[in-house]
Amino acid sequence: MPASTPVYLDNAASTALIPAAAEAMAVAWSQPGNASSLHGSGRRARRILEESRESIARDLGARPSEVIMTSGGTESDNLAVKGIYAARHREDPRRRKVIISAIEHHAVLDPAQWLADEADAELVVLPVDDRGQVRVDALRDVLEADADTVALISVMWVNNEVGSCQPVTDVAALGAQHGVPVHSDAISAAGHVPVDFAASGLAAMSVAGHKFGGPQGSGALLLRRDVNCVPLLHGGGHERDLRSGTQDVPAAAGMAAALRAAVEHLDEHRSHVTRLRDRLVDVVTAVGGSRVNGALGAGGDAAPGIAHVSFDGCEGDSLLMLLDAKGIECSTGSACTAGVAAASHVLLAMGFDTATARGSLRFSLAPDNDDDDVNAVAEVIGEVVERARAAGVLSGAGARTGGGR
Amino acid sequence: MPASTPVYLDNAASTALIPAAAEAMAVAWSQPGNASSLHGSGRRARRILEESRESIARDLGARPSEVIMTSGGTESDNLAVKGIYAARHREDPRRRKVIISAIEHHAVLDPAQWLADEADAELVVLPVDDRGQVRVDALRDVLEADADTVALISVMWVNNEVGSCQPVTDVAALGAQHGVPVHSDAISAAGHVPVDFAASGLAAMSVAGHKFGGPQGSGALLLRRDVNCVPLLHGGGHERDLRSGTQDVPAAAGMAAALRAAVEHLDEHRSHVTRLRDRLVDVVTAVGGSRVNGALGAGGDAAPGIAHVSFDGCEGDSLLMLLDAKGIECSTGSACTAGVAAASHVLLAMGFDTATARGSLRFSLAPDNDDDDVNAVAEVIGEVVERARAAGVLSGAGARTGGGR
Repeated sequence: MPASTPVYLDNAASTALIPAAAEAMAVAWSQPGNASSLHGSGRRARRILEESRESIARDLGARPSEVIMTSGGTESDNLAVKGIYAARHREDPRRRKVIISAIEHHAVLDPAQWLADEADAELVVLPVDDRGQVRVDALRDVLEADADTVALISVMWVNNEVGSCQPVTDVAALGAQHGVPVHSDAISAAGHVPVDFAASGLAAMSVAGHKFGGPQGSGALLLRRDVNCVPLLHGGGHERDLRSGTQDVPAAAGMAAALRAAVEHLDEHRSHVTRLRDRLVDVVTAVGGSRVNGALGAGGDAAPGIAHVSFDGCEGDSLLMLLDAKGIECSTGSACTAGVAAASHVLLAMGFDTATARGSLRFSLAPDNDDDDVNAVAEVIGEVVERARAAGVLSGAGARTGGGR
Repeated sequence: MPASTPVYLDNAASTALIPAAAEAMAVAWSQPGNASSLHGSGRRARRILEESRESIARDLGARPSEVIMTSGGTESDNLAVKGIYAARHREDPRRRKVIISAIEHHAVLDPAQWLADEADAELVVLPVDDRGQVRVDALRDVLEADADTVALISVMWVNNEVGSCQPVTDVAALGAQHGVPVHSDAISAAGHVPVDFAASGLAAMSVAGHKFGGPQGSGALLLRRDVNCVPLLHGGGHERDLRSGTQDVPAAAGMAAALRAAVEHLDEHRSHVTRLRDRLVDVVTAVGGSRVNGALGAGGDAAPGIAHVSFDGCEGDSLLMLLDAKGIECSTGSACTAGVAAASHVLLAMGFDTATARGSLRFSLAPDNDDDDVNAVAEVIGEVVERARAAGVLSGAGARTGGGR
């Protein structure tokens, strides 16, 4: 039976709401008010919203007017990819190329594919190396061949499955050199590694509150003022007419408070999480036939909180469910594709064969994890892998459990 | 100086979060969890989400699989209008007409206009009578002339400015007769008047949690399974692939709890709110040169919570700010257009001249309002109107204050 409080090592899927965020939301909720209303309660809601916006801007190296509040990371990514494409393609119909990396989250990959299917776009997918880092030389080749046909570039800051950091500043510089706006999905980066929007040179950047201790349903697109973007949601003209809809003031307050805490304690959290992660990797790879993947395994630039490990002869879903039965919660990759039978496109792009890709686990840590959590994994991982291997041998394809399929 | 707790009569803009909703959200937040994750915490989040969906479905006469969670009313409206149009137009490019009423919220009006500007649509706007009720005969004429060219119809359930109920069932029946899907923005209706999706005959219907005591940032599109709709947000394939993005589980739980309370106590709340509203109308129209508008004034079908009143020789914004200074909060119309100088398109469509349209106030009540709130208005309304009239005479156009412009 699982312990009453599970060991939660799936923070890349969603973090716990930190107390500072809950308190900021409670304050916002203590009075009604629509931030567009002119009376006192409306002005109070507006003040909370704008103070949240200023705080988020400060913590991400942006100006307040560059922060567009959204309902989360997927909306931010869709707004950037579809909105910037629409604006750039309208300005010049020759701009058809949407350049993304092969390891983008589906929230970038799928709108880009949709543009190719429905809106005259041509999708250009940049390869990554075996550490899971995008090949900047490939981007340079595309841009030097014909930059005038490029609508936008979107390369994530930190990969959500394997934790590899991407050369976002180099990508942004290349884009700037060729006059092409660059968006980055920084959803696994903000609050985890230093992120400075202005210094990055990016045109646009997505963040999501529930990846750093804020509430689900909170997010922002940071958008430079000189970058045109067509809205997805039309209506009351909120958020500089880029995102209509009554602003979710408590969510903005919660996200701002969580980001403030994450940025204020960034160094301390990073060393704590890095130390735990390194211990976790030691513990897990002590099991024979296993290895840690991505930049972390290959000495590249890795985000602190993610350890992605492959186990020979296992199904990841079997490992996941066996660990879950022991009260340890992790994932096989992105939660958004949990239960999907196909091997991860991220791992395949990194050169994994299908069997190895499917025999992998992602452990993701947050500042509230501690050594006991790692100890709990140490206690059971050997037995769990052994059982998963037995199941894998017995069933051929391995046991597959869970929802979403 | 305003009292420390203002008299809040702007519930149509945003309601206070009711305790039952806050409690449901606190439970959801007590543990982390992404509803797509396969482990125990993920399954717990999924269970809360699906129980919320079932509860919302039950309370709105729908099946759980018809409830698509969104970030609010504007997103629901945009998804319905743009998504159903895109699907219907793709199936048959002759379907270009988007039929809406003249008094739709901007969250329907603006995406419809966007379709006309950018996506080959032809906008057909149905007139309303002087009670603010859509002319079904006008719809019949359009459909009988050439229903094959109609992509969709969108007519709201209750108008958010004047509170008039629309003949939604008749509109849905006409749509069905001609094979055209009908969407209704029921954002000012759900939780306020009886709403039964199945019985209505609608193809799609939008609701928003913060209009009936739930959280901002919560909403749903109810969508019949046989109605095709192209998503706005692509990614992880959440919500039947119609709305990707990590589901906001606490928001869904809060919305479900608020709707449960609203529907359970609907009759009792309606009589309470209707009684207060009638008292408020008596009190306010005791001032000379004033009248109540819409269905309420003309004996038509009116939602209980909204009283829309015009005052001769005043600017609505002056009235609003003077009342605000006395601690009484109301609005001149939709909060989404607060601070916009133009007269409301709703009132103009109802035949108001510009001066009368601009000299109007909306008071909107919730179950937590009481007789003291009405008494507070009674105490000051005479003096406030007198001062606003003096200001209107002095300045010609009247004093204009507030944000948003």
